[in-house]
Amino acid sequence: MKLTSEDLHDLAVGAAFLGTGGGGNPYVGRLMVQRCLDEGLTVDLIDPTDVPDEALVIPTAMMGAPTVLIEKLPSGEEAITSFRQLEKHLGRKAFATMPIEIGGINSTIPLVVGARLGIPIVDADGMGRAFPELQMETFGVYGVSGSPMYVTDEDNDSTLLMATDNKSMEWLSRMVAIRMGGCAYIAEYSMSGADVKRTAVPNTMTLAMRIGRCLREAKASHQSPFDALLNLMPQTLYNHARIIFTGKLVDVQRETRNGFSIGRARIDGLGPWVGTMEIEIQNENLIARVNGEVRAIVPDLICIMDSESAEPITTEQLRYGQRVTVVAVAVPAIMRTPEALDVFGPRCFGLDHPFTPIETMA
Amino acid sequence: MKLTSEDLHDLAVGAAFLGTGGGGNPYVGRLMVQRCLDEGLTVDLIDPTDVPDEALVIPTAMMGAPTVLIEKLPSGEEAITSFRQLEKHLGRKAFATMPIEIGGINSTIPLVVGARLGIPIVDADGMGRAFPELQMETFGVYGVSGSPMYVTDEDNDSTLLMATDNKSMEWLSRMVAIRMGGCAYIAEYSMSGADVKRTAVPNTMTLAMRIGRCLREAKASHQSPFDALLNLMPQTLYNHARIIFTGKLVDVQRETRNGFSIGRARIDGLGPWVGTMEIEIQNENLIARVNGEVRAIVPDLICIMDSESAEPITTEQLRYGQRVTVVAVAVPAIMRTPEALDVFGPRCFGLDHPFTPIETMA
Repeated sequence: MKLTSEDLHDLAVGAAFLGTGGGGNPYVGRLMVQRCLDEGLTVDLIDPTDVPDEALVIPTAMMGAPTVLIEKLPSGEEAITSFRQLEKHLGRKAFATMPIEIGGINSTIPLVVGARLGIPIVDADGMGRAFPELQMETFGVYGVSGSPMYVTDEDNDSTLLMATDNKSMEWLSRMVAIRMGGCAYIAEYSMSGADVKRTAVPNTMTLAMRIGRCLREAKASHQSPFDALLNLMPQTLYNHARIIFTGKLVDVQRETRNGFSIGRARIDGLGPWVGTMEIEIQNENLIARVNGEVRAIVPDLICIMDSESAEPITTEQLRYGQRVTVVAVAVPAIMRTPEALDVFGPRCFGLDHPFTPIETMA
Repeated sequence: MKLTSEDLHDLAVGAAFLGTGGGGNPYVGRLMVQRCLDEGLTVDLIDPTDVPDEALVIPTAMMGAPTVLIEKLPSGEEAITSFRQLEKHLGRKAFATMPIEIGGINSTIPLVVGARLGIPIVDADGMGRAFPELQMETFGVYGVSGSPMYVTDEDNDSTLLMATDNKSMEWLSRMVAIRMGGCAYIAEYSMSGADVKRTAVPNTMTLAMRIGRCLREAKASHQSPFDALLNLMPQTLYNHARIIFTGKLVDVQRETRNGFSIGRARIDGLGPWVGTMEIEIQNENLIARVNGEVRAIVPDLICIMDSESAEPITTEQLRYGQRVTVVAVAVPAIMRTPEALDVFGPRCFGLDHPFTPIETMA
């Protein structure tokens, strides 16, 4: 599937939705892909089932603070350098690249790599949303090693990490990215086509585009974008979605701690929604409670959207007075197994509430 | 030349002297080498002129805080892993290893690597003393690239850095070492035998042993160890040495800032020495002034020694009330060129006094 400019717009909206507050604004990434299209390059998505089992796939991404990226624009060559170096280290050419994260900016970085190198981008990822750390990958949950990993910055400084486990890889590479100026470009979790089919969350790139398109088309035809969204999701692997609150944003606390954006948002109910929803944030929205009662919890998606425009609102865009609608979405089964919850379930974020699927909540 | 246990004692004392306050206490390193000797392994020093021009030499070292090393004892395998990984990356077997720094603990790490791998250790190094940062190497001054560099910790996590220059290599690897728990083990500045002869400070391992032996023998025969030392140095490349002050240590300020031990020591003159000497410290002793007048300055050596035992005193061992003798030593010509002073001269430590050779001072 060859992507168009319109697809890119839709992808950016859908990726912001799947980012559940985190992952950064895909705007800069979208411009980088748009430039590839303007140069006549092809952005070619490939279904994971079409990747040969023995083919090598090398995912690419940005690592670090999306806020830094705005001030330190990448040339696009950084991720390509990491990709090429990892190929060289492995002694093999890769068949394709792939996102590690569909939420936010990392949905677009692999598109630039694929377009510039003339290789396809696998329509799948390893988070099925946005998460703050590199070990939080279904790839790793199901046995793929994140190492060897390459990290490259805009000065062409390059680092290869071989960590004994994926958490050590995160720990070491995070500081490298900080020293590189707060954001860097990586290639990691290299794997076979067979491993892609076994460990990736499939078709999340096209899912993001479908979400963006559904919201766009609903608004163009003066229908409710929320109704359109709630109708779309059951046709996907994210097969349950519902509005869990609507109201006015009355308080936002946010601070940067240990490199994360930590905070909470309070929403006072409007219309039929009574009480106050409180959402805890660590880059992404982690848990939503109304008067102390849990209404949705990580890894299920908690998306704060503008009640009027249905634009997803990222953590850094939250402002007092916004009228917001909170949508919760069930993540695919591959993200809810005990092994998966051990890596990115509530406990991994310091929450002492057990994971409870959104569809089983009141 | 095969090293004996007695050589190791002498080496430790001489390396502490050449450390000019920094480089860490070689005690733990000495024990590691002693254990190799106890196991029947050979520690074989080779003169740099005996290294074939086309042979590959890979220096090895500890990186980080020597104070951490005491609490986190290395197995000895860490530096070997970095060495082996770098061989593999370069696709060649190395002929020998070599110290990057003769001052302090890094005089001993390559001995363990050489003994365990059954290869010689080149009798030379890249600092001719101790310095706090990895770009401060004659290797780099004269064109050898520090990258590719491997960093390994005791958990066998391993990182390859390919930095565009040696200062970036220091900047990136420093944080990796910190994340690895404060100290790690490295292989870097791989070079040919021809480059060893061109860029290394030669015969510093044997120099350290000669210094240790000369002090030991003088004390055993009830002669002045200081006289013996001042007689020895003119026979070496460090061809000028003299006592620049003697007195009582009356004040020590020390604080850890940006990972360095920063401070100053004040010494009140005793006997014929009038006034107060003030020594500025950044890990190593950088500049010595008496009543504001400079008496010695980096990269020349400023060594604070116990006036009675003639033991070199490292920065962390400085205590109020110690009777000390300060010895200044001219470093070899290779360390005093404009190119060298650009990398480890006074300005590199924020001092605005020009380098002045010790032999030209009053």
